[in-house]
Amino acid sequence: MSELRSLDLAARGIELTADQIFKPHANSLVDGVCKVNGCTGSFVSPKGLIITNHHCAYGAIQQASQGKQDYLTDGFQANTQQDEIPAPDYVVRVTEDYRDVSQEVLSAVRQDMTFLERTKAIEKKSKEIEFAAEQAAPQFRAEVAEMFAGESYVLFRYTYLKDIRLVFAPPQSVGNFGGEIDNWMWPRHTGDFSFMRAYVAPDGSSATYHADNVPYEPQRFIQVSAAGVEEEDAVFLLGYPGRTARHKTSAFLLYEQNLRLPTIIDLYNSQMAIMENAGKDNREVEIKHASRMRSLSNVEKRSRGQLQGLVRADIVKNRQDQEAELQKFIESEPANREQFGTLQAEIEAVYDQMTAAAPLEINLNQLRSASRAASFAFFVIDAAHERQKPNLDRETPYLDKNWDQSLQKLKSSVNDYHQATDQAILADILQRLALVDAEQTIPALTPLLASAEAIPTVSAQLVEQTKLDDWNFLEECLAMDVQQLNEVKDPLLQLMLQLYPTYLQIRETQKTREGELSELYGRLLLIKRRFMQTNFVPDANATLRFTCGHVRRYSPEDAVIKTPLTTLSGVIAKTTGVAPFITPAEVIAKQQAGDLGPFRSPELDDVPVAILYDTDTTGGNSGSPILNGRGELVGVNFDRCFEATINDFAWDQSYSRSIGVDIRYVLWLTGIVYGADHLLDEMGIDMPAN
Amino acid sequence: MSELRSLDLAARGIELTADQIFKPHANSLVDGVCKVNGCTGSFVSPKGLIITNHHCAYGAIQQASQGKQDYLTDGFQANTQQDEIPAPDYVVRVTEDYRDVSQEVLSAVRQDMTFLERTKAIEKKSKEIEFAAEQAAPQFRAEVAEMFAGESYVLFRYTYLKDIRLVFAPPQSVGNFGGEIDNWMWPRHTGDFSFMRAYVAPDGSSATYHADNVPYEPQRFIQVSAAGVEEEDAVFLLGYPGRTARHKTSAFLLYEQNLRLPTIIDLYNSQMAIMENAGKDNREVEIKHASRMRSLSNVEKRSRGQLQGLVRADIVKNRQDQEAELQKFIESEPANREQFGTLQAEIEAVYDQMTAAAPLEINLNQLRSASRAASFAFFVIDAAHERQKPNLDRETPYLDKNWDQSLQKLKSSVNDYHQATDQAILADILQRLALVDAEQTIPALTPLLASAEAIPTVSAQLVEQTKLDDWNFLEECLAMDVQQLNEVKDPLLQLMLQLYPTYLQIRETQKTREGELSELYGRLLLIKRRFMQTNFVPDANATLRFTCGHVRRYSPEDAVIKTPLTTLSGVIAKTTGVAPFITPAEVIAKQQAGDLGPFRSPELDDVPVAILYDTDTTGGNSGSPILNGRGELVGVNFDRCFEATINDFAWDQSYSRSIGVDIRYVLWLTGIVYGADHLLDEMGIDMPAN
Repeated sequence: MSELRSLDLAARGIELTADQIFKPHANSLVDGVCKVNGCTGSFVSPKGLIITNHHCAYGAIQQASQGKQDYLTDGFQANTQQDEIPAPDYVVRVTEDYRDVSQEVLSAVRQDMTFLERTKAIEKKSKEIEFAAEQAAPQFRAEVAEMFAGESYVLFRYTYLKDIRLVFAPPQSVGNFGGEIDNWMWPRHTGDFSFMRAYVAPDGSSATYHADNVPYEPQRFIQVSAAGVEEEDAVFLLGYPGRTARHKTSAFLLYEQNLRLPTIIDLYNSQMAIMENAGKDNREVEIKHASRMRSLSNVEKRSRGQLQGLVRADIVKNRQDQEAELQKFIESEPANREQFGTLQAEIEAVYDQMTAAAPLEINLNQLRSASRAASFAFFVIDAAHERQKPNLDRETPYLDKNWDQSLQKLKSSVNDYHQATDQAILADILQRLALVDAEQTIPALTPLLASAEAIPTVSAQLVEQTKLDDWNFLEECLAMDVQQLNEVKDPLLQLMLQLYPTYLQIRETQKTREGELSELYGRLLLIKRRFMQTNFVPDANATLRFTCGHVRRYSPEDAVIKTPLTTLSGVIAKTTGVAPFITPAEVIAKQQAGDLGPFRSPELDDVPVAILYDTDTTGGNSGSPILNGRGELVGVNFDRCFEATINDFAWDQSYSRSIGVDIRYVLWLTGIVYGADHLLDEMGIDMPAN
Repeated sequence: MSELRSLDLAARGIELTADQIFKPHANSLVDGVCKVNGCTGSFVSPKGLIITNHHCAYGAIQQASQGKQDYLTDGFQANTQQDEIPAPDYVVRVTEDYRDVSQEVLSAVRQDMTFLERTKAIEKKSKEIEFAAEQAAPQFRAEVAEMFAGESYVLFRYTYLKDIRLVFAPPQSVGNFGGEIDNWMWPRHTGDFSFMRAYVAPDGSSATYHADNVPYEPQRFIQVSAAGVEEEDAVFLLGYPGRTARHKTSAFLLYEQNLRLPTIIDLYNSQMAIMENAGKDNREVEIKHASRMRSLSNVEKRSRGQLQGLVRADIVKNRQDQEAELQKFIESEPANREQFGTLQAEIEAVYDQMTAAAPLEINLNQLRSASRAASFAFFVIDAAHERQKPNLDRETPYLDKNWDQSLQKLKSSVNDYHQATDQAILADILQRLALVDAEQTIPALTPLLASAEAIPTVSAQLVEQTKLDDWNFLEECLAMDVQQLNEVKDPLLQLMLQLYPTYLQIRETQKTREGELSELYGRLLLIKRRFMQTNFVPDANATLRFTCGHVRRYSPEDAVIKTPLTTLSGVIAKTTGVAPFITPAEVIAKQQAGDLGPFRSPELDDVPVAILYDTDTTGGNSGSPILNGRGELVGVNFDRCFEATINDFAWDQSYSRSIGVDIRYVLWLTGIVYGADHLLDEMGIDMPAN
């Protein structure tokens, strides 16, 4: 955000000043933007009404649906605030302020430290800074974010809102129209939006759900514009993009291209096939898996796009060329050669180690996460070890301030547990571990992997015999210390206890690498700045960012042009009646009646459904407001085009395009199709008298 | 062609007059167009050089490759005329003239005839007219074509050229770039062209291959233009489109949509899977199946496109609406009601019968065609029956004038025979016949279909024990009469002898339906002309047609525009190195060297590869010349876009687009990449001095 001042906003079609968009300790546009779990959201009314994506509210809709009505299928609409349904897994985070703490953080690092010590020192110091900040102002959460590894750190303070409720969601046939087929694709016809609302205690302080809570009054809300945007209009986004890797070296990209991405694609495809099979004839099981399926599928397809982009766009080659240039520069000056001569080779060596270790590490990490029963066991054991340490020495999930949320997550995971799925996934991972001869380095695995044929039986026994899927049993275990856990007769828990030292070792190895890379990248940044004589925008790290551009067509391939607005007629044309291309009868009826209200684009003579623009977004930008030049909300970002999955590694004006739902489709659906006029009222949108 | 005079050619961007394009008994542009087996070709030099599609010359390349070099993979280039390789399965047909013979043909029909008698009478009369014409001028072949069923017939006279040789073919990685994935698709990057040459006896008369033969001198050849065309330029095509069904009723379309198309898709997928499996590890078998595979795959994908188009474009509904209007018109006048009141219902009744009979009929017809050994048996039996009849009473393949060609086809089929494939295909068809309970109406099938489990064994025995795949044995059989055939100890031959009466019955049923439809459609045309007060262009029927339009972009779906020229850079971008996206090293080298010669489009700054235009083409238009406003050849038509597979049933300016290879890509490959400068010389194209 601090780079905003160096941009000529007017030249980019933005009528607001940098101060109007972002000014610390003042009321500016960014105060209307919040983080909704891993997504972004916008306050669009003075009463804490939030607009975000359907896929961001998905977990809330899924949870609200269990045992009650199927809101995923039918959609949900609260006619009054009393009808809004709590989403206990949701936290909304509002950025209050930030300050640079690089010096303080790095003061903890001493030259004689090992890399492991270095990482631990940075982590510990960051937690101390956060703790001190929270002591000083208990109403805020404090988080230190790394901007450039080993170089700069910023302390952000957030308000955490913990009583979040579901207000409106279209049926998923609309909210996820096109499903996995259209995901990451343009043209798009998805109404990927939902409304939620943040509540606080009557005194205005943050609180978990309580019937007496009242709607949160944000410092600022973003005005919704029903006018929308047309091709070539300027737009900008505010959001919380996830991690990018634009400053990483070619060795990292090769690790992604040759190892990590192909492995993830293969693993996730297996796991999705297992879940799909389990939910085939059982809607209840299907709903249990829905959120997880969607997330795996999303990552799987993104990974395929990234892999394809890495290969097609010659990104590794380009970065290698840049590195060769940099190396020439380094070697041209003796002082530089002395200090940086082997730097790039050292970075490569770290990735070589990662590449060698990855097949075993990835599968072991899958074992303690993808197999949910095993993940419960791991959590119990890890918690027993970590919770006995002083607060600030613990891993993040076990810090006192995070503990409730960690338990809530665990509970949701237990709710979604399905034994047959877990058995199959465990067997799949064990088979993969057998293929990489894991039993040769990890004796605890020998009895499981000795016979390939026996793996399904062994997995079935472990999963059938464990009681860890019982929340009461889990709570008992969570109350035990390590000694007591050793006595519990649960074969899966005992297996994970035996594997625990291996996991600790992996954790330390990863911290060592992190420390080494942090030190190396810190130096790389120094010499790169000297070479290129410029400053860089840091990689995204889930803190608030600004990006601007235009609603713009692009050519993904020879002889194909994709234009930047889709239409309601396009939804109808794509509708086959077979999922994921189903359109609810009420949508079709309003379209056929020509009842478009004030949401018709005069240029298209139709309701625009989705828009395409060339801003620089990445994961975590889901739900980000798309703003016109006056700072009014004209859409909600939800995806990128397939070619732009590569944004995480490199951005290019010619093919990097992001995708949002047009506000006119949002308002048409909410107001005209589903009749939630009160929400339009609340946002200050005039509806025509009927 | 006779409708040409009613068009305002100048307004359509065509600088030639109708007479310059087509004037009977004079030298006009159409004299440069010929029929190459089922495709179209153009004479492009005074020495009988023909340009057509790679996929039209495919059989010739495949045949030339057997036992010798693999010209499919490597491409073929004759450096001198002596090196040109004969293609014995090819016949080139040049239209000499035509005249209306409707009265003469229909004079054979009497009101009291049954429908079967009616069809036979029309067939017989047509053959008599052809025979008389050939007696009068033995240098020409005569063929009667039905323009409107039951209404108008035209006698065409053709020169048949029987010594056709392969001159130049690019590697199939170029000629079929994109393969089945890109087939029927735009954007396209296929160099789908080849050169052949027609030869005649030294005295100029038509003759089969002989070393002393000389190049044929066409009455007219078409000048090739190296300048090409750009977007929105006018183009026209001359060609021999196959059958269309634009005048057929909605009942026919429903028969296609609900029965025939889905059945064909399913059948062909099975057969392709069998052939693919057989050729998987055996390049020789793969080559044997190549041409047949390609043809099945082409029809399968087209059928899918048609099915999709029928459903999406609501074609049945539209035609039903038109029919309802027509019915209203008919019923509004007592005289019309009396004469035509039940006409549309009668047509529907015929298609109802066809629909009921189709599952059995289609599979029985597959039995005697897709199983090649069974097809040999059927041919032998059918020939024995037919050849004993007077010449003009025979079915078309057994007419004296067609007999040599029929034998040549049979011989090629025997050459491509592969026993394991035939076994599997026979078993597949028998299984399908068992599913429709064929044994209940056809006792000869009972021993084969009694046990579903035994079908593979039964099929294997039939195919293993038959000697019909031995050309010498086949020739012996072909010399026998029906009595003698009954004595031959060959179980497959005996099976087909038992089934022969069933096939005769199907043939008669089909002729009966044809007679009935011919009579009904004849009347339908009368009342439709009266209703719409206009004339119609007849359905395509493999006779020479003219169609004009423009090089033009289109939008296949919401927010997607496809522009009408692809480029050499696009070929490179699509190249993955994995079939069907392989590009030969020599092509890549010339592209990388920027050696584009005079074939660069200034607008694209690249060599154009394929072009898209909105003329009305259909099957059989493969190889048709794409001509600019001055009548110069600027490309060769080879396909339609997927949305335009529906052209066979209906044509629409918004989505019906045809695809051709750009002449600049043809010339660049032929001259610059493969150095066949002598061919460019022969076509009068100047090459830059090297």
